[in-house]
Amino acid sequence: MHTIGVDVGGTKVAAGLVDEAGTILRRTRRPTPSASPDDVEDVIAACVQELSDGVEVEAVGIGAAGFVTADRATVLLAPNLSWRDEPLRDAVAERVGLPVVVENDANAAAWGEYRFGAGRGERHLVLVTVGTGIGGGIVLDGQLHRGRHGVGGEIGHLQMVRDGRRCGCGLRGCWEQYSSGRALLHEAREIAGVRREYGRRLLELGGGSLDGIESVEVTQAAREGDAAALECFSVVGGWLGQGMADLAAVLDPGVFLLGGGVSDAGDLLLVPTREAFRARLTGGGGRPVADVRLAELGNDAGIVGAADLARSR
Amino acid sequence: MHTIGVDVGGTKVAAGLVDEAGTILRRTRRPTPSASPDDVEDVIAACVQELSDGVEVEAVGIGAAGFVTADRATVLLAPNLSWRDEPLRDAVAERVGLPVVVENDANAAAWGEYRFGAGRGERHLVLVTVGTGIGGGIVLDGQLHRGRHGVGGEIGHLQMVRDGRRCGCGLRGCWEQYSSGRALLHEAREIAGVRREYGRRLLELGGGSLDGIESVEVTQAAREGDAAALECFSVVGGWLGQGMADLAAVLDPGVFLLGGGVSDAGDLLLVPTREAFRARLTGGGGRPVADVRLAELGNDAGIVGAADLARSR
Amino acid sequence: MHTIGVDVGGTKVAAGLVDEAGTILRRTRRPTPSASPDDVEDVIAACVQELSDGVEVEAVGIGAAGFVTADRATVLLAPNLSWRDEPLRDAVAERVGLPVVVENDANAAAWGEYRFGAGRGERHLVLVTVGTGIGGGIVLDGQLHRGRHGVGGEIGHLQMVRDGRRCGCGLRGCWEQYSSGRALLHEAREIAGVRREYGRRLLELGGGSLDGIESVEVTQAAREGDAAALECFSVVGGWLGQGMADLAAVLDPGVFLLGGGVSDAGDLLLVPTREAFRARLTGGGGRPVADVRLAELGNDAGIVGAADLARSR
Amino acid sequence: MHTIGVDVGGTKVAAGLVDEAGTILRRTRRPTPSASPDDVEDVIAACVQELSDGVEVEAVGIGAAGFVTADRATVLLAPNLSWRDEPLRDAVAERVGLPVVVENDANAAAWGEYRFGAGRGERHLVLVTVGTGIGGGIVLDGQLHRGRHGVGGEIGHLQMVRDGRRCGCGLRGCWEQYSSGRALLHEAREIAGVRREYGRRLLELGGGSLDGIESVEVTQAAREGDAAALECFSVVGGWLGQGMADLAAVLDPGVFLLGGGVSDAGDLLLVPTREAFRARLTGGGGRPVADVRLAELGNDAGIVGAADLARSR
Repeated sequence: MHTIGVDVGGTKVAAGLVDEAGTILRRTRRPTPSASPDDVEDVIAACVQELSDGVEVEAVGIGAAGFVTADRATVLLAPNLSWRDEPLRDAVAERVGLPVVVENDANAAAWGEYRFGAGRGERHLVLVTVGTGIGGGIVLDGQLHRGRHGVGGEIGHLQMVRDGRRCGCGLRGCWEQYSSGRALLHEAREIAGVRREYGRRLLELGGGSLDGIESVEVTQAAREGDAAALECFSVVGGWLGQGMADLAAVLDPGVFLLGGGVSDAGDLLLVPTREAFRARLTGGGGRPVADVRLAELGNDAGIVGAADLARSR
Repeated sequence: MHTIGVDVGGTKVAAGLVDEAGTILRRTRRPTPSASPDDVEDVIAACVQELSDGVEVEAVGIGAAGFVTADRATVLLAPNLSWRDEPLRDAVAERVGLPVVVENDANAAAWGEYRFGAGRGERHLVLVTVGTGIGGGIVLDGQLHRGRHGVGGEIGHLQMVRDGRRCGCGLRGCWEQYSSGRALLHEAREIAGVRREYGRRLLELGGGSLDGIESVEVTQAAREGDAAALECFSVVGGWLGQGMADLAAVLDPGVFLLGGGVSDAGDLLLVPTREAFRARLTGGGGRPVADVRLAELGNDAGIVGAADLARSR
Repeated sequence: MHTIGVDVGGTKVAAGLVDEAGTILRRTRRPTPSASPDDVEDVIAACVQELSDGVEVEAVGIGAAGFVTADRATVLLAPNLSWRDEPLRDAVAERVGLPVVVENDANAAAWGEYRFGAGRGERHLVLVTVGTGIGGGIVLDGQLHRGRHGVGGEIGHLQMVRDGRRCGCGLRGCWEQYSSGRALLHEAREIAGVRREYGRRLLELGGGSLDGIESVEVTQAAREGDAAALECFSVVGGWLGQGMADLAAVLDPGVFLLGGGVSDAGDLLLVPTREAFRARLTGGGGRPVADVRLAELGNDAGIVGAADLARSR
Repeated sequence: MHTIGVDVGGTKVAAGLVDEAGTILRRTRRPTPSASPDDVEDVIAACVQELSDGVEVEAVGIGAAGFVTADRATVLLAPNLSWRDEPLRDAVAERVGLPVVVENDANAAAWGEYRFGAGRGERHLVLVTVGTGIGGGIVLDGQLHRGRHGVGGEIGHLQMVRDGRRCGCGLRGCWEQYSSGRALLHEAREIAGVRREYGRRLLELGGGSLDGIESVEVTQAAREGDAAALECFSVVGGWLGQGMADLAAVLDPGVFLLGGGVSDAGDLLLVPTREAFRARLTGGGGRPVADVRLAELGNDAGIVGAADLARSR
């Protein structure tokens, strides 16, 4: 029987009808209403109604961008949605008349990759989602790691640099300030801003303005072989590998999967990341080394993962 | 029925006969022979023989200072014992005629604290053992976390400072170089070496020589209220809390247990550690905060934990 | 008799007819032609012609943004003007038929402040000009310090942070990347970019865009008492005081003068700078402490200084 | 006519009768009495008496390890001698009946090198004395740079690392904690302490004990080609070159002279220092580069310099 996976982000709600093999049979997508949780729950219910038209649906899995309690019922805190202690599971279950499971969105994506994506067959994995910031999901011995209060896996906030760059979480020096889309732009704009000759191509692609340089411009310049743009990926990948080495020391996964928008740059990011990971892994030659590879499911990972979690609820 | 727990360190083998409630009924201890694994295995067997005299023993658990494979049979690498790929489980089982389980020593200690010590009733915990370096064991949802290859939990090698102090693992800036007995001495000797007046009491207790200052002198001076010695604990506790905050972001445990020789200083270490942990935890007010407290079993944790793991093998 | 002072910057040539008391009697200003040194020299000559109309002029002093040789004849390198080894003294002297002295522009400004501004009566001073970057001029025992090759006083390139922010000079971590208008914006935009609530006022004044935040907005917010804006000045002033403490250790001036566009913020910058300077000065209580105060002559310092140098050539 | 130069250090008073060519004709040396300034002044007077036996002496120059006022009469603060505001010039002049000049000891040494040593013919130079800490003397345009209060040239306290190693001056991160004999040992002992295999030769030369490793052992191991010892010199030289690059940006000397006990290692220190200096000098290709070479006069520099200062008082 099919299940429905829903991915609730700050700007849109994406959902899919998913079969047992992880294939998305139908899709829908709506803007996230900015108002009350009630409105968002109505939108989720509408998506579910639309997708279940004419088919039998077993359950609904929701991946939400926020801290979810260990019982997978309540969203403790969702900064982008301005939610606090929202009983999302019951609110949606009541609307749709189906069993509902709520999960952190990055966890759902990790689960999707574990079951049907680049992590198939590897019972210990970490998904590192590199977008504006860093998100992550951890699967240990074939189980999602959720932690005592359900708030584990906030890997983007490992401290990399004491008193370093400010982070939205209120701390300084967090990993996601050094290994994200934001970090890539930080490097590119710093170079283009102070080293005119070296950063000329970046500035040019940015239309002559620092603010015009976005990730896509850095990627394009790097693909052309521009040294400054390649340096940006090398720096970001260097920190990415460092954080993975930290995680490997603690978690010892079999594989790291690199996902998120910035990972669309492929080898430009993957190669320096993997190199740094190996160079900075503790234990020298005596320690087995995890693989580092790209995630496969892209934006579908959350839908597919949430749907599968609903099945195995 | 009873089991035997054995703690194999670089200098001594300590073992105990343990009942189901985690009580050590008999103890023994012998020097670790520095020669071949064979000799160590003979010593372990001799301890088991001695302890099982006249009682029925169900199984033997061994905690060894090294990387242990995921099947808990082989010591991959034990730097202090100069072992590589040693099939310890079978070698001892053959000698003693009992089922044997091998575990990393810090993991065994974490398990001991979880089952019978300061972690009772808390299914998600991290034991941070602060001795010369930092060791650690992680219990997640009531299971020891071992990782894909059995080498997880090497928390002492989280990088704290880019290009920082050299570590025995070959990297630089590892946590254990900033939050250990070695780190405490580093601070104390630096102060006493360059700031004569401020560090006078430390130097005095060291018999006038920097090298005479050991952990016990720093602790004594701190107990007397000496500002320089208190600063040493504050610095070390500050880094300790930072590393715990990193681990909490990833693992979300319910409690951190502080063990190892340096934790004998009690509140001198615990108070600044806890304070730094809270200040450096990501997620601000919206995130549940783990407790930080002292471990309870001291050096017995490894024996008790290994014995219990043998029971539940 | 009067002299003429000329300040040659990347965008404009400003000149004045100056009397012995340092008063500017007439002024003129023209855009800097972007083409060849020849064109710039023509513009300088035209300014001199205009200013000397009907008065007797003794000599011309030119302050130029670049390295000037020790014989004050040649501009070795002027990055903003794209000059190399330009014999500026003779080229202008030939055009105007007067004795000409060439000096680095920041040196000329320091000399102006020493003779007629905030440094009167103090034979050892350092002018720190905080604009987009940091420039500086040093007067020691009543003489401009120029160095063996005339390229001394490049104080903006003291290294503050190993492997820190990139600098236009090709190095990393230079002082001017931490204590300048650029640095002020770096802090303000980082705050507004990642800490929404805290940085709200800054973003608002920037018209809702990070790139809309310029120095004037940070100053305005700080004047309103906005905590985030005050933090920006505190950080920049903190590094400014650190660099001054470094310079004081080496040079032991009687006073530091704070000039440049960013110093228009007055006490907002001066107070944290002075505080940091004192806290970070070596030698503790036993060492006399230099005064730190605002420069007085603003943009006129270069003209007045160059004119006076021409007189005492 | 001859003058006498006296070098007053924390442990010994060394003096010499010096001719106009800077040749030391007679020498004497006595332990520095640890008690009152009076006693030290008596010892200085005794040295002068001894050296002037049978010859006519014009004046006495004293180099003292401390801050000396700009009028070269009073020792403001001498940490190693526990002096404050000691009118050394008059106290000695009264005892010996000759004109006396007092100078900071590192300044005196710089002057000696400038007049008769490795700095002959170079009117802008910096002497960097690398011993336990870093001392320095600066000659600008053929004049000793003393500063507004006579306390300039404290180059050892440039900050290299924010919140870095503690310094005896009460600050953290001072240059002399990274580029001195103390720093060399810091590196060597850290390596030998945590990286057993790599640091084996150092430990061996230290007699098996970290504390047994002194500068002479590091130098010996480096001469044998030991990689760990060479790394120590490379690190210390790297920081030395960095600090010189900072000084060059500000002072633009023609030459840096490397003196002090650690410089006895010769090329082992000089080569990495020079390399780092060039790599970290601001201004890229357009800037003239100072020479970096070894000082020539060794411990005599202070005596010879002080004697010459007495002549040209």
